[in-house]
Amino acid sequence: MAAVDVPVALLGYGTVGAAINRLLAESGDDIERATGHRLRVVRALVRDPGRERAFPAPEGVLTTDFEEIVGDESIAVVAEVMGGVEGTGEYVLRLLRAGKPVVSANKQLIAHRGAELFGVASEAGVQLRFEASVCAAIPVIKVLREALVVTNVHRILGIVNGTTNFVLTQMEDGADYAEALRDAQRLGYAEADPTEDVSGADAAAKMAILATVAFGSRIALEDVVYDGVERIRLQHVQAAHELGMAVRLIGSATLVDGAVDVRVGPSFVDRHHPLAAVEGPFNAVMLQGDAIREITLEGPGAGGLATASAVVADMVSVIGTTGTGFLQNDACWRTLERLPPGELRSPFYLHIEVDDRPGVLAHVAERLAAEGVSIARLTQRQLPEGASLDVVTHDASTGRVREAAGAIAQLPEVHGAPEVMRVVSERGV
Amino acid sequence: MAAVDVPVALLGYGTVGAAINRLLAESGDDIERATGHRLRVVRALVRDPGRERAFPAPEGVLTTDFEEIVGDESIAVVAEVMGGVEGTGEYVLRLLRAGKPVVSANKQLIAHRGAELFGVASEAGVQLRFEASVCAAIPVIKVLREALVVTNVHRILGIVNGTTNFVLTQMEDGADYAEALRDAQRLGYAEADPTEDVSGADAAAKMAILATVAFGSRIALEDVVYDGVERIRLQHVQAAHELGMAVRLIGSATLVDGAVDVRVGPSFVDRHHPLAAVEGPFNAVMLQGDAIREITLEGPGAGGLATASAVVADMVSVIGTTGTGFLQNDACWRTLERLPPGELRSPFYLHIEVDDRPGVLAHVAERLAAEGVSIARLTQRQLPEGASLDVVTHDASTGRVREAAGAIAQLPEVHGAPEVMRVVSERGV
Repeated sequence: MAAVDVPVALLGYGTVGAAINRLLAESGDDIERATGHRLRVVRALVRDPGRERAFPAPEGVLTTDFEEIVGDESIAVVAEVMGGVEGTGEYVLRLLRAGKPVVSANKQLIAHRGAELFGVASEAGVQLRFEASVCAAIPVIKVLREALVVTNVHRILGIVNGTTNFVLTQMEDGADYAEALRDAQRLGYAEADPTEDVSGADAAAKMAILATVAFGSRIALEDVVYDGVERIRLQHVQAAHELGMAVRLIGSATLVDGAVDVRVGPSFVDRHHPLAAVEGPFNAVMLQGDAIREITLEGPGAGGLATASAVVADMVSVIGTTGTGFLQNDACWRTLERLPPGELRSPFYLHIEVDDRPGVLAHVAERLAAEGVSIARLTQRQLPEGASLDVVTHDASTGRVREAAGAIAQLPEVHGAPEVMRVVSERGV
Repeated sequence: MAAVDVPVALLGYGTVGAAINRLLAESGDDIERATGHRLRVVRALVRDPGRERAFPAPEGVLTTDFEEIVGDESIAVVAEVMGGVEGTGEYVLRLLRAGKPVVSANKQLIAHRGAELFGVASEAGVQLRFEASVCAAIPVIKVLREALVVTNVHRILGIVNGTTNFVLTQMEDGADYAEALRDAQRLGYAEADPTEDVSGADAAAKMAILATVAFGSRIALEDVVYDGVERIRLQHVQAAHELGMAVRLIGSATLVDGAVDVRVGPSFVDRHHPLAAVEGPFNAVMLQGDAIREITLEGPGAGGLATASAVVADMVSVIGTTGTGFLQNDACWRTLERLPPGELRSPFYLHIEVDDRPGVLAHVAERLAAEGVSIARLTQRQLPEGASLDVVTHDASTGRVREAAGAIAQLPEVHGAPEVMRVVSERGV
């Protein structure tokens, strides 16, 4: 057994870094009870040691010299909480190659360079953990890698962006999109420039990480088809409500006959599905697997303290498993094909605005039937100018639904292109 | 690092035992990737080796002689899946004393003798894991002990009995209690004798285990105040619905100024609370803590394969942490007072049937006010004979609400004793 006092280091000492130092100091007893060890921050890499800090580091801890960390044999684990991809990635690579386990809270780093880092960690025989890189303190990575090790997870469905979930929940209460986004900004749930969140890019990076871990195959950001919430209007939210559903930005990662599909897009979620109940800035991830049917984890998906808590838990887990070989094999151990994006099957929702005259419905139904898309539910409604059709289909391939939507858009009595959204109702089997 | 081939043993080889052997055989590659080791069942203790088994054990594995397991130095971990408390407890104690880590799926064993077993495991320097003893494959114990190690969990709210949750969900669809229970029995969600489930006793045992782990203090079964769903009628479910709530059998474990309260009872759960969305035979546990606000885990709470999957994950975790000191300190490291049961505060729902005449409402309100209980919402309704009052209070102590209910029952214009149920709306802060 290693010494009771375990020196650790941080790359970065901002909000999260300072919170980690504080948690390690204040929860030293809890950690010692769990691990038999007391973790102590002995070095933290910063640009400006003179800057004022939320929880000041003890004298001599802050350093501008990375060599003092990588070269210090006594340091047992390093937490990377500085952000950034290129320079940070080089630091992490050097640490791993030097035999130091690393814990990272860096979504962009893991999404962009995860596969490379996993390989190097495995070669060096050390762990790389990254719980905090996805959904902050929701322990989805630990659950995937440790609790569900024999359950063959074949699908992940997740609400992994709190900003957009807050916006969509506000819209359920009647706010329009712009108003809801302003609320999110006012409450600190959205950035001044919300593009990364509302475009679905943030959720796509998280889904890439989750899919990589769950399926053991590198899923790059470029492999994730994503779409955001910018085009969601109050009418979509109301239409969903009338159909017994809720609009959510759903990330999905699916294994279909050995091929992978990962995507993010606004979806209609059945009211009885656990993800429909996720409100406000919360995140939730549903893991569907053979032995477990499904496990859903829900919680706040962001926050400095929650992130720090996840980083500390990872550091504790590293210390608790060092030398056993646990989680030291390459997390990307196979290469899976990508499912062609049109081939993923699911039910769909289509909203079609049309002239209010006889025969329109028949024409729309013909175009769907021509692509083999069958209708599960249909609501027709009068509009000030014309009418609207809300259609929910049975399971159909994405490609054929898009084809049908394209053909419907060509009909002279149809106004513009139909709105198409995936419907999520499947539970694990 | 230990050898790649790791011999393990089972106590019991029924449905769960056979499923464990099958999972270890079929998922050997997954486990080796995670741990660097391949777990192989070399001994399984049974009463009758000649009996036919779902997944037959290889020649020579089944034994009736416990000494062949406790005395075999090569066996690295033993899974107890035989059930029972007294004899089984002695086996587990002997294994722990012999330095063998144990994984148990046995709710009754851990609820009744957990504290004693934890102490012996800690003295012997070996792990005792028991994920499968609570909510099958929902990894709530791992999350509590490993992911939330620094978050100071101060409250647990849980739906930890699938039978009663199925019954309550069926009642939401209009079934009466007897009908819903028959459905549960027909579908295999309830036993022929459902007493253990519907009385709340099963949930109480699980809450005792969760509270013990979360608070680090022995919570005995006798410390859990519990009540079941037998008295729930359709009218309660409908009243809850009208108030924007759902009836659920809620287990709660709360730390109040260093004292512990653990109870189980039917409760009105606010529709926006994650536990209100838990339907059918599912279980869910919400963990509220300082750094994380709240994390909710949901999934199927029973099933042989789910249970086996949780046992295997625990065995894998034992192998992945052996020799590091992880989770080897006594899980019951402090002694906490019990909060006197009347002192727990929460909002309450009261249903009161009364004569339909002026002044009744004032008398009821006076009795509540006399106990310092203030009214948040009140609905008065005509009944064929008289009227009913549905009251939701602000936060109040259980004892004073009971006092007020007793005083109300004494009013001449009130018919019988008021129905009192806890209201769950609090989210983590």
